[in-house]
This record gives sequence, C-alpha cells and structure tokens, in this order.
Amino acid sequence: MNAHMPPMPAIRPEAAAAPTSGIVDAMTYGRGRPGLIPLWVGEGHLSTPDFIGEALRASLAAGETFYTYQRGIPELRAALAAYDERLYGRPTDPERFFVTMGGMHAMQIAFRLVAGLGDEVIVPTPAWPNFVGALTVSGATPVTVPMSLEPEGWHLDLERIAGAITPRTRALVINSPANPTGWTATLDELRAILALARRHGLWIVADEIYGRFVHDERMRVGERAASFKDVMTTEDRILFVQTFSKNWAMTGWRMGWIEAPPALGQTIENLIQYSSSGTAVFVQRAGVAALEGGEAFVAEQIAAARRGREIVCAGLRALNGVSLPPPSGAFYAFFRVRGADDSLALARRIIDEANVGLAPGEAFGPGGEGALRFCYARKAEDVAEAVRRLVPVLGAIGAE
Amino acid sequence: MNAHMPPMPAIRPEAAAAPTSGIVDAMTYGRGRPGLIPLWVGEGHLSTPDFIGEALRASLAAGETFYTYQRGIPELRAALAAYDERLYGRPTDPERFFVTMGGMHAMQIAFRLVAGLGDEVIVPTPAWPNFVGALTVSGATPVTVPMSLEPEGWHLDLERIAGAITPRTRALVINSPANPTGWTATLDELRAILALARRHGLWIVADEIYGRFVHDERMRVGERAASFKDVMTTEDRILFVQTFSKNWAMTGWRMGWIEAPPALGQTIENLIQYSSSGTAVFVQRAGVAALEGGEAFVAEQIAAARRGREIVCAGLRALNGVSLPPPSGAFYAFFRVRGADDSLALARRIIDEANVGLAPGEAFGPGGEGALRFCYARKAEDVAEAVRRLVPVLGAIGAE
Repeated sequence: MNAHMPPMPAIRPEAAAAPTSGIVDAMTYGRGRPGLIPLWVGEGHLSTPDFIGEALRASLAAGETFYTYQRGIPELRAALAAYDERLYGRPTDPERFFVTMGGMHAMQIAFRLVAGLGDEVIVPTPAWPNFVGALTVSGATPVTVPMSLEPEGWHLDLERIAGAITPRTRALVINSPANPTGWTATLDELRAILALARRHGLWIVADEIYGRFVHDERMRVGERAASFKDVMTTEDRILFVQTFSKNWAMTGWRMGWIEAPPALGQTIENLIQYSSSGTAVFVQRAGVAALEGGEAFVAEQIAAARRGREIVCAGLRALNGVSLPPPSGAFYAFFRVRGADDSLALARRIIDEANVGLAPGEAFGPGGEGALRFCYARKAEDVAEAVRRLVPVLGAIGAE
Repeated sequence: MNAHMPPMPAIRPEAAAAPTSGIVDAMTYGRGRPGLIPLWVGEGHLSTPDFIGEALRASLAAGETFYTYQRGIPELRAALAAYDERLYGRPTDPERFFVTMGGMHAMQIAFRLVAGLGDEVIVPTPAWPNFVGALTVSGATPVTVPMSLEPEGWHLDLERIAGAITPRTRALVINSPANPTGWTATLDELRAILALARRHGLWIVADEIYGRFVHDERMRVGERAASFKDVMTTEDRILFVQTFSKNWAMTGWRMGWIEAPPALGQTIENLIQYSSSGTAVFVQRAGVAALEGGEAFVAEQIAAARRGREIVCAGLRALNGVSLPPPSGAFYAFFRVRGADDSLALARRIIDEANVGLAPGEAFGPGGEGALRFCYARKAEDVAEAVRRLVPVLGAIGAE
C-alpha cells in the first residue's frame, strides 16, 4: 500500500467482507520459482484438446461473434441433455439446462435464487473456499459444519447438519465427490440428505462436478459417482452447478451450466442477463464438441487421476506422522502432518524445501486446519517427482 | 407453461423481481421473419474483424487454456492503460483496470461495491434497461428520474436529480453518451454532476461506453465525448464500466472492464473470483489486439454510425407526426409518433407492416413510453432501406 493512496471510500459491507482466497496466499509465495511443481489448484498439466479448440475456430470463422440466447444456444442445451441422459441413464429435458460462464457463475446464480441477506446456508467443511466466499458476497450467512475424520475416512455427520438448521436456513451445499477431502456420498447418504432437506423445505445446491472421478466402488454407479439424480424426483428443490473445467481440461475457458427446474427458466434467464449477458457462441460450440466427442479424453483424465492417486497414497500414507485418508472421489489428497498446525506456514516451508506448491488446508474452512491439499490430476511423472521431493521434508516435519 | 409443471418453489424476492427485458418481447415477436431488418439491439452487422480473432487463435495454439489472474492478464491491463492515456490525454495507472466478462459484469461488480438492500441508486431515464435490472437483483432500489425532452433535445435536469437524493442514496448512474436517447453531457454538466455527487458523498457509476460516438461538437473533446475523466481527480468516487462490445464489434465475446481506484483492487479481485473467476486468456489476448491495432476499424465504425445517423434524421425528422431530437452521441435514434402511446404495440405493428425490428421505448423506463429505438450503427444500405420501409408506415400512424 502506498502511503499517498486516498482512503478507501465506503463500500457495501458484503463486498468488503468478500474473503481473499487462502490458496492465493501460497501461490503468491511460490509463483515463479524455477522447477516448482504447482499442485495448488484444481487443474491438470494438459491444455484443452485440439478438437475442442477446432470447434471454436470454426465458429469464429463463421462470424459467430454476436449477442446470443441468454440461456445458451439450443445446440448446447440439447447436447447437455443428451450427455446427461447417457451418464445418468434417464431422459432429461433440455429446458433444465442453462449455460453459464463457468461453475462459479452457476454457483452465483444458484445462491441468488435461494439465499440473501438474513438467510443461512449450510456448508459442510473442509470445502472449496468459493462456497463461503460467494455466499458472503450475496449477503447470506454461510454456516459451516465440519465433517469428522474417522479412521476409515471423512464422514458427513447428518445429525450435525440437522443440528445446524434454524428457521433462517434456506439451503444445503452438498459437494460430492468433494474438494478437498475426496469424500463421496453413498446412495444411502444422498437419500438421507434429501429426506432432511425435504423435511425442512430446504434447497440443495449440488456440486457434483467431480462426478466422473470416483475411486471407491461403494459410491460408484456405472461410469460415475452416486448422484442426487439417482434418488430425486423432478419436483425436488435441487440446483446442480456444473462446469466444463475438469472433465475436458477447460479451466481457463470459463464455461459451465446450471441445471434447475424449468419453471425457474425465466428467472434464471434474467439473472444471466444481469450478470454475464450470456456466453460467447464460439465458446459454446466448443462445449458441444467436448460433450459429443470428449469421452476418450475424459477416460484418459480419469485414468491419470487414478494413477496419480495411487502414487500419492503409496508414497505418503506409509510415512510416519502423515495422515492421509484415501480419497473416495475427485482428484485431491488432503493430508495432515503430525505437529504442524499452521497450514500456510507448512505450505510455504514445503515450497522452500521441496519446491512443490500445495494449497494450505486452512483455506478450506473449519476442519482444514493443519492440512495440505495436493492435486494429483497430472501426469504420473510430475506426481511421482512431487512425492519424491515431499517424502524427506514431510518425514522430517513429522519427526520434529 | 405446461399445466403439469410443478409449482414454482420459493426463491429470493430479489431474484424473482428480476425484470424480463422489454426489448426481448419485440424480438420474440419478430424473430425469424424473412427479410426483417433487425435494429432492436445495440450491435452492427459486422462480425469481429479477423485480426482480433487471429490473436485468439494464436493464444489457443499456444495452449493458453488454464486459470489466470483474476484482475486480468498484465498485458491487457497495460494495454488498457495505454489506450486510456491516448484517448484521454493523461497518464493512467494499469492498476486502475480490472478485466470483466463484458460491460454487464463490470456493472454488476460496480453495483455490488456501492449498493445493496436498503440503498437507493438514481438512474436518469430513459435508460438501458439493465441498470434497473441489475440494481433490482442486487437488492438495491433503483430510483428513476426522467430526463426532460426540450425542443433542442433531451436534457438532464440536475434539480430533479438533487430532489431525488435521500439519506439512503448511494450512487448516481450516469450514462453519457446515452442509450437510448443519445443525450451527451457537456463538460459543464459533468462538473455540475460531480459537484452534486461530492456534496452528498455519492458514488458515480459512469457508463461512457459510447464515448467514441459523439456527433455534436459541443460535447466533443478530441476524438471522443466529454468524460468525467476531464473533470475529476483520482480521489473521486467514480467507477467506470466499459466494454469491448461496441468499438470493436465484439458484442458476443463478453469482455469489458471496470476502472476503479486501485485501493479497491483486492475487493474487486475477490468479487471477480466469486462471480466469473476471471476471463479466458485467449479472449484477453484478442482484447490486447483490439486495443493496439483497432483504431482504423473503430474509425470505420464511427463513420458508419455518422452516416446512419444522417440517413435516419433526414428520413424521419421530416415526417409529420414524428418527433426525433437529433442524438448528440451513441448510435440510436429514439423517436415518438404522434398518437401512439403503446410502444410495444407500435413495435409489433412496425414488424408486421414494415418488417423492421425496433426496440419499444417502454423498455427504457419512465420517459420512454410511446417511443421507439432505432440502432443506426449498420451499413448505410440497411439503414436507408429501413427508413424507406418506415416512412409510409410512420406517416400513416402519425396521420391517424
């Protein structure tokens, strides 16, 4: 801060309260170090496959650079419905799908629909920091409920969730498979959560963006993780937020979708109008290509994550002082080191001593203190090299 | 609506109150009619020039498909500062610029910063409907203050603005050159508005996106319209919302920027994080190309708008019963027809009888009733043909 800077003018408290991402703190510390292996954010090392870029180029060449449908082009909404039908095994109405500028934009719209000033929304933690961030900006109060770490892994305690419900509660945010813990709900757990939401008249904001990445057979249904779609009716108050980022290596494209009851269509169209005013047609054409021709690439992504998971678990779980429950889904290892409580200090030390970039657990809210998040959705060599570098450093810390 | 649809579940009142754009009503009525000349939205007939698309293709080929800086890539922020310096004739700090997903996203962030539930924001009307729409969604109360239509054109009555200020007022939205009226502030008017805002401690949200399109020499400063930048200090509470859409024919790209005091930087970064999570790098590279190599194209756009304005004014101002104050800036003709009060009915009748798509004035709020908006930023043949078709129909209506 420059001493000559004018005083910060008065801004809205919700805007001023928007928290800075704790992941960025570690990234700022480590950015630009030669040879650093960056595993702090949820993206792989591959850029988007070219057949997806080709669809963008064709659209651009056709001059598709004008304003378009706020809900998304009909071709992409139809492709989303067809993809959904293939993956979840039942017909879906294209009118349920609304194209957004990324999963974050989908989340913003979902929160706008269900909560605002004076409302509470329950977020089980450790959780993706943007849930709490976006709720804070919306004016709603995020109510964090820590999950428990049992010997067999992370556990969502439904009694604890039920105990956090008040007359002001409007929604539950359920992220399964979960970032950062890898926790993944079973069908029975999804049924129980849905029953709780129905009983209290709550919305569910369902983040199932890692649904293709399931590693534990108990939570698997066909090619993907168990989903609220397996247990819900179309009348249930569930808003799905989704993204092209993870399955198709499109993190930088900023495209996702929200799936909602068609009765909300006009309202969602209006919320898109007054936030993004739609998504570029040439980006949407790329989305159609991803959905229609991307299965081989997605299969490779899943296989890479599975290999990465095996390498991390084999390398770190054996270490004395390291506690790493095997993640059931998604592509993160979330682990603790005995005696280390300050996760940001730990992340910095690992940058200094191992030249590996991890995300500090405290960024993920209550229950994340002291932990580190390692994104293993990368090529096996990188993951193996990161583990090789981590082993002596973590071993030394655990023995201190 | 399907009779079997489930009842609309309870959603937040601000979301439910999001108004549907009145422009869309006319578009829905006319869409798909063969031979219709569409002049209802603010975009021309040209797709984006290829040198801009080329920058996107190069970035994509270089694999720039990953997450990036929330504030925008440094190259684009530097290019924005350099463009600003050329246009406004004084040095600008790149730290003042934050890349957004379009002018609408910039506007959403500006409103998040300055207003929320319980706050009032003054919007002179007729105005772009999205000001009121976005404020409604934010929870703030838009307070519309109609401009007056004097014999010499539209006039912003500062006494009326001052009279609308209450202890809850937080900001003024000033759009100059204005959509839809073409009203453009003089330097004296800008000074007076700024003095009023300073006196009451109000923010100004300045929409100067049509600043390159100025037709009246009294409001001209060099290559552009008079701007708050000519009369402000860097300490003033002014948020500029901007877009690549109009100057560079990039409406469909969804990229813009917000210019704000650097002291707000971390807050704006957080608001971007929790809404869009940044703008695609390949789109930002195209923005750099537009800013650095786009002046010849912008000059053509300005010339086309000037020709279009002459054709519309010459063709319609002579008509008995048509009232069209010559627009000082932007690229719209906003006119009334004697005896016609229902602008949506009028827009539909013109679609039926002239096969020309215009925007109904009622969409632009108080003061817009009975009027029609004609976007003349198109090739001269289209504008001339639209005028040829309109003349008999408007003549007949005016004589009824």
